[in-house]
Amino acid sequence: MDDYRGKKVLVTGGLGFIGSNLAIRLVGLGASVTILDNLDPGGGGNRFNIDPVKNDVNVVIGDTCDLEKVQPLVSGCSHVFNLAGQVSHIDSMEDPFSDLRKNAVGPLTVLEACKKKNREARVVYAGTRQAYGRADVLPLVESLVLKPVDVNGVNKMAGEWYHMVYHGAYGIPTVSLRMVNTFGPRQLVKHSRQGFIGWFLKLAIDGETIQLFGDGQQFRGFNYVDDVVEALLVAGTSTKVVGDYFNLGGMRPHTLESLVQTLLCATGSGAYKMVPFPSEKRSIDIGSAFSSFIKFHVATGWEPRVPLDEGLRKSVEYYRQHKEHYW
Amino acid sequence: MDDYRGKKVLVTGGLGFIGSNLAIRLVGLGASVTILDNLDPGGGGNRFNIDPVKNDVNVVIGDTCDLEKVQPLVSGCSHVFNLAGQVSHIDSMEDPFSDLRKNAVGPLTVLEACKKKNREARVVYAGTRQAYGRADVLPLVESLVLKPVDVNGVNKMAGEWYHMVYHGAYGIPTVSLRMVNTFGPRQLVKHSRQGFIGWFLKLAIDGETIQLFGDGQQFRGFNYVDDVVEALLVAGTSTKVVGDYFNLGGMRPHTLESLVQTLLCATGSGAYKMVPFPSEKRSIDIGSAFSSFIKFHVATGWEPRVPLDEGLRKSVEYYRQHKEHYW
Repeated sequence: MDDYRGKKVLVTGGLGFIGSNLAIRLVGLGASVTILDNLDPGGGGNRFNIDPVKNDVNVVIGDTCDLEKVQPLVSGCSHVFNLAGQVSHIDSMEDPFSDLRKNAVGPLTVLEACKKKNREARVVYAGTRQAYGRADVLPLVESLVLKPVDVNGVNKMAGEWYHMVYHGAYGIPTVSLRMVNTFGPRQLVKHSRQGFIGWFLKLAIDGETIQLFGDGQQFRGFNYVDDVVEALLVAGTSTKVVGDYFNLGGMRPHTLESLVQTLLCATGSGAYKMVPFPSEKRSIDIGSAFSSFIKFHVATGWEPRVPLDEGLRKSVEYYRQHKEHYW
Repeated sequence: MDDYRGKKVLVTGGLGFIGSNLAIRLVGLGASVTILDNLDPGGGGNRFNIDPVKNDVNVVIGDTCDLEKVQPLVSGCSHVFNLAGQVSHIDSMEDPFSDLRKNAVGPLTVLEACKKKNREARVVYAGTRQAYGRADVLPLVESLVLKPVDVNGVNKMAGEWYHMVYHGAYGIPTVSLRMVNTFGPRQLVKHSRQGFIGWFLKLAIDGETIQLFGDGQQFRGFNYVDDVVEALLVAGTSTKVVGDYFNLGGMRPHTLESLVQTLLCATGSGAYKMVPFPSEKRSIDIGSAFSSFIKFHVATGWEPRVPLDEGLRKSVEYYRQHKEHYW
């Protein structure tokens, strides 16, 4: 981790959930961090997210699709964390062109900037398990065909493969991590469009009733954000990951019902009930889906360290303390 | 094939190579054909291509990215052949955003128009073998992971998967055919950026020397355009292909050297020599790559019927007769 000391690092989407946690950690490691974030009103960007390091990072408000803006930002960087994007599956179906812009044009623009200005930068991309679509076999492993079931999954798949292409064609050292359901401090929790964990967390803290679609027995993999940040940092330094893609994943899969029960233990408030699937969600639901992170573990030694209950307790504590910035 | 009689059919890219051959055939089958083509100066669109049916088709000059323009055109159609796109691999590396627009935004816009105006239309997409990238095993089969090596391959992969998503989420009956190297009348031949066969054909007819990169022993699959048109028509009517993707492919693979030798037999003019790979082509070259069309054959009975030598003879005849429109 000493590799980051004194280095110039760009984090796109750095005011968002994972980006801000990463930026805070990078500052702690002695990196010189620039954040590029468009603070899209529909996105997860939140200036409070970087409150602990607000005087230690350079924040540029702008769009990753703006090549003229991105080019000078990548110049001289040792690392670019290409995290900016749109994460809502349902939004991607309602406005597929906006999703395409944010999840395909944006990452491609960052790569194009690196091609023009800095082919040495390690570019780490936030891919997603969603690109696999509905699982024919579990766990999801990297040798499986990607069969995305929503526009977001297609565009994130394209975003990942631009990184592979820019490695193969231009030698830019890129790597993609296919993230699973990530949770923790600094996530958007005020509505359910950007993932259900944050939304469930808010409902539980507010003492409300969580609605679980279907029977709640769908398995998922969950990663606490600190583990994901660690994975990003490792992907930025490992010599064995360049030009390749890797699953992240939880210690073990949990059912959604078990997630909610663990959450309600952490909050001591709230309740849950099962309800039928709304049709617009049913059509893009993927059922059980969890990933094996063994390829990444073998390459780098990374493994998740924060158990679900501990991560949820820390999250509840954070949001209770900083409620006014997230509610 | 009687399914097309009296039907309203839209062909995007219908002034281009495959689109115009398809449109001509559809007119012969009694369909009411509308062509949407932007006559992009860099593309393969050519008004002469539809000369045999110029009074029998409705030609709309416009862009598939223009949702307002596309919506009325898909209304009432029984079939939409979503063929418009950009086919140059090297252009996609030089201007990735233009490729993204033409190969991802365009097809997505056509699907979005169908979602809004006509969810019954059979939408047939021209996918590509290029999305597989460099082959780990041959022949290429549909169960293999797509690993595109250029921006064009990534965007065409995305274009295909939008079709799968719009089937799964909205029930639109879509299908994608992953085309191999297609050749025949009405192809752009005046430069080499849109495929090497047309370019080789022009050089041979002109009595010039064809340059083969590397040792010329790379195997490829080739389809004569009439076979591809037949495949598109079959994909438009078969009940067993909806929501799925299929390779096309030649009767058997041929080396590039064998292709050129067969071509020179057909022309009786021209020559060839081996030259080293230019570096910008080397970095995105895929080596040997040929596909199995057996999945599509089992589903539909389609198989290629025109052998390479016969197809090349017909092509040479066509271009010699209509040279002024293609040179």
